[in-house]
Amino acid sequence: MKKIGVAILGLGVVGGGTYEILCSHREFYRHTQNVDLEVVCVLEPDRKRTDALGVGAEKIAENIFEVVSNPDVNVVVECIGGVTQSRQYVLDALNAGKTVVTSNKELLCKYFHELEGVARRVNAGLYFEATCAGGVPVVRTLIDAVQSNVIPSFEGIVNGTTNYILTKMKEGLSFEEALSEAKTLGYAEADASADLDGLDAAYKLSILASLAFHTKVPFTKIYREGIRGIESEDIQEGCGLGYTLKLFAVGRQTEHGVDVRVHPAFVEKGHPLASVDGCLNAVCLNGDSVGEIVLTGKGAGALPTGSAVVSDILYAATHDGHRYSTFKNTATADKEVKFISDFESKYYLRLLVPASADATAVTALAKNNIAVRKLLRKTDGDQTSVILVTDTAHESAMKKALSRMRTSGIEVGAVIRILA
Amino acid sequence: MKKIGVAILGLGVVGGGTYEILCSHREFYRHTQNVDLEVVCVLEPDRKRTDALGVGAEKIAENIFEVVSNPDVNVVVECIGGVTQSRQYVLDALNAGKTVVTSNKELLCKYFHELEGVARRVNAGLYFEATCAGGVPVVRTLIDAVQSNVIPSFEGIVNGTTNYILTKMKEGLSFEEALSEAKTLGYAEADASADLDGLDAAYKLSILASLAFHTKVPFTKIYREGIRGIESEDIQEGCGLGYTLKLFAVGRQTEHGVDVRVHPAFVEKGHPLASVDGCLNAVCLNGDSVGEIVLTGKGAGALPTGSAVVSDILYAATHDGHRYSTFKNTATADKEVKFISDFESKYYLRLLVPASADATAVTALAKNNIAVRKLLRKTDGDQTSVILVTDTAHESAMKKALSRMRTSGIEVGAVIRILA
Repeated sequence: MKKIGVAILGLGVVGGGTYEILCSHREFYRHTQNVDLEVVCVLEPDRKRTDALGVGAEKIAENIFEVVSNPDVNVVVECIGGVTQSRQYVLDALNAGKTVVTSNKELLCKYFHELEGVARRVNAGLYFEATCAGGVPVVRTLIDAVQSNVIPSFEGIVNGTTNYILTKMKEGLSFEEALSEAKTLGYAEADASADLDGLDAAYKLSILASLAFHTKVPFTKIYREGIRGIESEDIQEGCGLGYTLKLFAVGRQTEHGVDVRVHPAFVEKGHPLASVDGCLNAVCLNGDSVGEIVLTGKGAGALPTGSAVVSDILYAATHDGHRYSTFKNTATADKEVKFISDFESKYYLRLLVPASADATAVTALAKNNIAVRKLLRKTDGDQTSVILVTDTAHESAMKKALSRMRTSGIEVGAVIRILA
Repeated sequence: MKKIGVAILGLGVVGGGTYEILCSHREFYRHTQNVDLEVVCVLEPDRKRTDALGVGAEKIAENIFEVVSNPDVNVVVECIGGVTQSRQYVLDALNAGKTVVTSNKELLCKYFHELEGVARRVNAGLYFEATCAGGVPVVRTLIDAVQSNVIPSFEGIVNGTTNYILTKMKEGLSFEEALSEAKTLGYAEADASADLDGLDAAYKLSILASLAFHTKVPFTKIYREGIRGIESEDIQEGCGLGYTLKLFAVGRQTEHGVDVRVHPAFVEKGHPLASVDGCLNAVCLNGDSVGEIVLTGKGAGALPTGSAVVSDILYAATHDGHRYSTFKNTATADKEVKFISDFESKYYLRLLVPASADATAVTALAKNNIAVRKLLRKTDGDQTSVILVTDTAHESAMKKALSRMRTSGIEVGAVIRILA
């Protein structure tokens, strides 16, 4: 039976979950995978964490050199987070010929190609299922299960924190109440900015789009809008129109270029991702042969994400001589790619219209060739508000129309895209 | 660039789809997978099929010996169906050292271990993603993505024909009308018995349960009930109670043994598989670490199933030196397994009760320790019918209770299990 020694860097949520699974399932993997996975050492300066997991003192490494120079270590798991230390440690591990499994989406997204280049050069493995959508096996599916397909587009709900908040807002809570509840339940960190502003989702989108489109999709090319500006009122209005609001990561290959973006959007209630609520994550992949595939599961948490890490370790352990790589054909990887910023969408608008500017909103849209699908006028005392649903339009056209409205005294209460 | 020669046996729906994808995507795979997949030959006696696909005469093999003796053939794709000829051909291919990719669930389910034994002995690959749930990558997920988990249970909608029929019955059609529509649309074959009687689903369950439970799950151990006995009336009644009816393939590891069955069952409308309608397939896997993962997609059709076949070919082509096997630890594979037949379930009953036997039904259940959750009495002229929803009970207890009711003059209109 093959013996694989594992080192874990960082025993936070994911590192801790990985440690627990490896310890509790060792016999199971011996039986079912014919592999003996042993945690040889951990690198974690916080004794509270090592004590809580019952890590023996003999397994606690002093520094990264001790880890990567240990001949019994075959796989190094990086769960530290951040990019400075983690990048150096991953490079050290790869350069020592160790297979690396990481759950660090920021690191992977920002240094994907540097790390992959090193892995390729030294013939070491680099695995990262846990970076995207927690326990949902979307990386493995893209690489090993729908690789026979051209993927013209995909969309995902890849951030559990914001999905939880939007679900609670649908149930009637305000943004602040929902955020506070998410913090209490441990679904949001004290500083939830990376989630709320769509950063976390954009890291994942960069990785997923690179895999799906076989091209480099730098984080900086992703249009990004978070959920801080969303009001419960619009979620309820949308509900009445048959829509559900979600924070989407969207990737599309268009004839004009690659379109990658993270923003809140309405989808019709029949959409495969409309009913993915709470902390769940889900990705809908559209393949040219297979059609639509939807993967749903827990997007975060110690054991679900740890499950993805350990599956990567087992994959590396049982795929002898297989060096995992994102770009099997390096020529393709260096192809110049065009990205589009002026993407198309349908829109939901909520406008506060003074009596004097009654027809202005529709005129402003018409002047920019944007057709109106639905119009709902609501009067509440002196205040007239108008809800508009438009046909597909370019962002640039919508911006011009909105600017025209504003100069005519219309207050734009909300602009929310509708995903077709 | 590695060159892989492919031979396709049988150009029916799946074989034809595979041929089409391989021809149209050859350049794409050269770019993205660094592999040149060429269809070297096909074995298909029907000239109408080869003509329709534009297969050149030079690519049409005369017999299996021509195929397996061709040194340019690396991978043999078996899409013939049936078990006699296909088994011999697959054995011939494996014995010639060719990697085999099959979409034939009946063959794999009935000769899984013979074929795997030969593949192991000659060190050839044996791949079968396309046998289960068409384009839904459930085989790859079980083997390569949730292999870090103990899977205590899973349930799936793995037959598109019956799911289409049940969806149409929910919309108001009778069984006969829905079946006829399915045939017109090509979703059901002229002889739809294998679908309607749950055979097709049981083949798939045998394969999925073997993978999920790391044990041999022979087809003959599966309890099987089809959808012929289902009446629209009960689908509607269930709907009113908050249930949706589906044909489920269920696998559970219990303390008393392995519980594997195919039967129609109600689930609550919030269940992750309740809204999987029409021809879609879906599988819900419950892992001890990852929790619930749901995979949804097209369960049949030339291109979706062809996509699964071609993904297997690419997987084989890009995983050098990796010999795929179901049981990495052969000792585990030969373990004695206990199967349970007296499984537990909640039940929906529709009873036609004469006035003289008013309390008999509930008494019959109570005598067998089955508690009633809901009771709805309906009177239509002389006819009183009673809908009952029970708590969890053993099949054996329910059988006794039903027998007692029948001897008391109660007509049992419907007995449908409810999946918890």
